[in-house]
Formats: sequence, C-alpha cells, structure tokens
Amino acid sequence: MSLVVIGTLAYDSIETPYDRRADALGGSAMYFSVAASNFGPVRLVGVVGDDFKKSDLDFLAGRGIDVSGVEVAKGKSFRWSGRYEADWNTRHTLDTQLNVFEHFDPKLPPACRDAEFVFLANAEPRIQMKALDQVTKARFVVADTMNLWIDIKKSDLLALLARVDGVVLNDEEARMLTGEKNLFRAAHKVLTYGPRYVILKKGEHGAFLIGADAHFSLPAYPVNAVVDPTGAGDCFAGGFMGYVASARNIEPRTLRRAMLYGTVTASFCVQGFSVEDIGKRTRTDVESRFNELLDITSL
Amino acid sequence: MSLVVIGTLAYDSIETPYDRRADALGGSAMYFSVAASNFGPVRLVGVVGDDFKKSDLDFLAGRGIDVSGVEVAKGKSFRWSGRYEADWNTRHTLDTQLNVFEHFDPKLPPACRDAEFVFLANAEPRIQMKALDQVTKARFVVADTMNLWIDIKKSDLLALLARVDGVVLNDEEARMLTGEKNLFRAAHKVLTYGPRYVILKKGEHGAFLIGADAHFSLPAYPVNAVVDPTGAGDCFAGGFMGYVASARNIEPRTLRRAMLYGTVTASFCVQGFSVEDIGKRTRTDVESRFNELLDITSL
Repeated sequence: MSLVVIGTLAYDSIETPYDRRADALGGSAMYFSVAASNFGPVRLVGVVGDDFKKSDLDFLAGRGIDVSGVEVAKGKSFRWSGRYEADWNTRHTLDTQLNVFEHFDPKLPPACRDAEFVFLANAEPRIQMKALDQVTKARFVVADTMNLWIDIKKSDLLALLARVDGVVLNDEEARMLTGEKNLFRAAHKVLTYGPRYVILKKGEHGAFLIGADAHFSLPAYPVNAVVDPTGAGDCFAGGFMGYVASARNIEPRTLRRAMLYGTVTASFCVQGFSVEDIGKRTRTDVESRFNELLDITSL
Repeated sequence: MSLVVIGTLAYDSIETPYDRRADALGGSAMYFSVAASNFGPVRLVGVVGDDFKKSDLDFLAGRGIDVSGVEVAKGKSFRWSGRYEADWNTRHTLDTQLNVFEHFDPKLPPACRDAEFVFLANAEPRIQMKALDQVTKARFVVADTMNLWIDIKKSDLLALLARVDGVVLNDEEARMLTGEKNLFRAAHKVLTYGPRYVILKKGEHGAFLIGADAHFSLPAYPVNAVVDPTGAGDCFAGGFMGYVASARNIEPRTLRRAMLYGTVTASFCVQGFSVEDIGKRTRTDVESRFNELLDITSL
C-alpha cells in the first residue's frame, strides 16, 4: 500500500458542553493518518513547530505512520481552538493560529512522491496544488476543503478540483460551493467541476457517493454518546482512503465498501476527544463495527 | 390481505414557495390508504362531511380501497391549510377545522373488525383507542401520532402505545415524547413504553427501525425536486404496512424490506401535491424504485 496524506498537524483546544481538552493532537492530516493507519502504512507530509512533542511523533510512528515527511520548522505549531454547542452541529472557532503552517511549502520525500493513493487534506488550495504537482505516479487523488477556502480561494479550489479524482465535502460546503440547496443536485454539479467522484458527508445523517458510474448512500453508524466531533470528516476520509489503498483497487464496488469503512472510522473518532479513541483502535475493531453496520443497513 | 386503517379524511389547502392547491384530498388515513393500495386491498375507516365529493370516494374505491367504513356525517369535512418554507422542514399550520371529525366515534364494519393488520393513523389517541378496542383479531397494530397529542394528550397516548405492536414517529415527535435529543436513545426509550418496534422517520435523512430483535437503518430515496411533503409520513406507513400485510408476515427480515417499501412510497408522494403522484402509481412503479433504492444502498 502506498498512501500519502498532505495537510495540517496541530494542537487543538476543544470545549464541549460536557468537557474540554487543551493542546490535544489535531489537524486534518493527523486525524486522517491515524484513521488510515488501521488499514496499513501511511506517509504523512506536513509541518510542525519546534514545540511539537516528540512523544506525539512517536505515537504516530507507533501506528505505522511514516513521519519522515513531517518538517520541523522554527516557531510554534498550528493551533486551533473551538467550542461546540449541545446540538454538535454548531461549532464556534475561538482562535486559529497558523504559525509555522503559514509559510508551509510542501516538499515531498521520494517515497511520498511515488504514492499511488493521495489524500490532499484540508489546507489552502495553493498548498494542495503544490503537493499534487509532486505526486506524478498517483492513480487516485482525493481532496478535502473547508468553507473558508470556498469563500476566499474559490478559483484556486476549482483549479484543484479539475485535477483530482475525488473530493470529500460536507453538506454545508457542497451547498456553498454550488449554490444548490438539494444535496443530490449539489453533488452532481460538483462532478461538472472535474472530479469523477463526490463523497458527501452529512454527519449524523450519513454520507453518499456520486459519480458517473456510482451512486451509493448509507446512514451513519449510530453512536450513543458523542464526545467530540472534531476530525470526524478527516477520519471518514482516512477510513475510506485507507481501505482503498489497502485493496489497491478503485472500482465502484470497492468504493462502496470504502464508504462503510469511512463511516465506521468516523464513528470511533467522535467517541473520544482528539484521537483518544480512534488512536487506540485496530483493524480488528474496525472490521467488527463494519460487520455491525452492514447488518444494520442490509436487507 | 386484511389491512385496515382508521384516521382522517380531509380537504387540504397547501402553499409551497413554488405553487399552491386548494381543497385537495388529504388526511392521514387517505394518504395511508392510497399508498397501501399499491400492495393490495385496504379497508378505510373514517368520517367525511356531506360536502365530500363522490368523485373522491370513487377515486379511492378505484384503487381497491374499501370505503364502506367511511361514515358520511352531516356538516363539513375536516379541513387543514398550511404553508411550507423553502427548506421544506418548516411547516406553518394556517388553519385547522375539525368539523365532522370533532365528534367522530369510529364504528368498524365486521370486515374491518376482522383485520389482521391495523394502522391507527394520526388522530386523537382516544379515537385510536376506540378503534383498537374493536380489532380483536389483529396480529400487528401500528400507530402514528403528532406533536399536538404528545403535548396535550400524553397520558392517553402512552396508554395506547402500551397496547400496540409498533409506532411510527418523526424525529421531532420522538424527541418531544421522550425528552432525548439523540434519536437512537429516544427510540430505545419509546420501546420501554410498550411497542415492540419503533419506526423513526427523519424525512430527507432516511428512517430507522428499532426493536428488541431488529435494528435497521436506511437513507431516503434521493428525490430531485420535492413538490409537496404533505402526507409523506402517512405514505411511508402505507408502503410499510401495505407490504407487511401483502406478505402476511411480521418477521424482522420482512420488516426491513417493508422499510424500503415505505421509503419508496413516500418518495413518490412528495413528487406531487396531495396524492397527485402516488395516486397514479402501481406496484410496478414501486417495485422499480425499490430495486433502484436497493442498488443505491447495497454493497
């Protein structure tokens, strides 16, 4: 398996109505790589400051994540803090400090440049494009984004979407990007921007995959008690891409199973703060819950 | 098949952001019976005023619906008018006139009293209970309700739920009835009130079935253009119960398929005002869309 992810590594401070954490491991590529590592090795590309704890890099390496593509720059690591309302759907960003990520210029080590499966985790589209330019052997590239880039960097984002195989969007992002309220129509419109597949995540309401040759929809895994929804989308993508890369196959039937793996992986993520739950999971756990989800959703 | 439904028959006046209809066929038992009639004969019990058009009763009879249990009382038929916001989730009731329904005292003809499968469509719990007392041979009784009865007749409703096999609730009703925000926990709490099964409808987000021996979840059928959501829940119940009654089987695997039939039937309903779409459908149409939904949701 050759899967590489490029994106942010961060320290997050998170408040929920029930609890809080300060300086917990966060960032789009961090969540993705921890999730995907349930399926095999992952190569992680990003930047951290000199305040980033060695124990945190060791934790990632201990999960089979190759951190040789993580640059350590002078200064502080990316920091984000946010607060969730009791409905979990309303998130207030309290503070964002780009720090060393502000001038991040991704330079992929040779092993990363050879990757067949690539995830461009949420980051400024210009940075995602720089990474994409280096992965010349990629068979399947999927990108993520966020409302901020749709708002202020839409043309860069559209240029990126024209060059990727798939894009993951949540409901709000899909509506913002296309101006379509109906999510099914929004997803079809995104296909006209270039990607072969759109993966639309609806949080507690499940997710669907749309492509010229694919249409698959599934509900979320029913989590009894959400602890922290941060990173759920990145973990969905990590489960999805981790499975695809492990299968070395991108046929539509494989992508359907990958949607279940994404759903299951995200469900572990929200059961703990940061990567406290998903970071302890193994493929065995994922496979058990995959079976359970399959049972809940099959005739 | 012996399926009976007791509930309202009405004339509705509906406004959407795009169009409107005055004095269109409506009512919980009317929608249910039109939907269920795709699967076989249905016996309809309710009351209409002397203003109810013969052509409307003929339309129902033409779909294999036995209207001999529909009482024609002196006065006006039940009338409801409402307006939908552009998001379809916000509905404003503009006017409700109970008219002849106010003093409805259901008296089931012998053929209805012998029914094995019974749906107590949305009506005051006291009326639902009177009907339930008469169906002494029922194998499978499912009840619907609404926010109003949860608000003002909760103890009557709880007495009813203790005596039925299943209840259909939408997300708002489940939360109101139980005080639980998490729908999965809400559904489990409803099970403690007595029914063996809870069918939880989430509109565009799909539906799930919970029981001691069953857990099944599925997304909605993706409707490109909603015209009028009125009656979607009743049509879901009609597809669900219509299939169960036609199969004469209430095993959990049968109920899973019934959830797909409910979903499909509701999807036709919202494609037209009143019963303009579902009222033209046949089992052939339903079966085609069942196949399509199965393809969208299966590995």
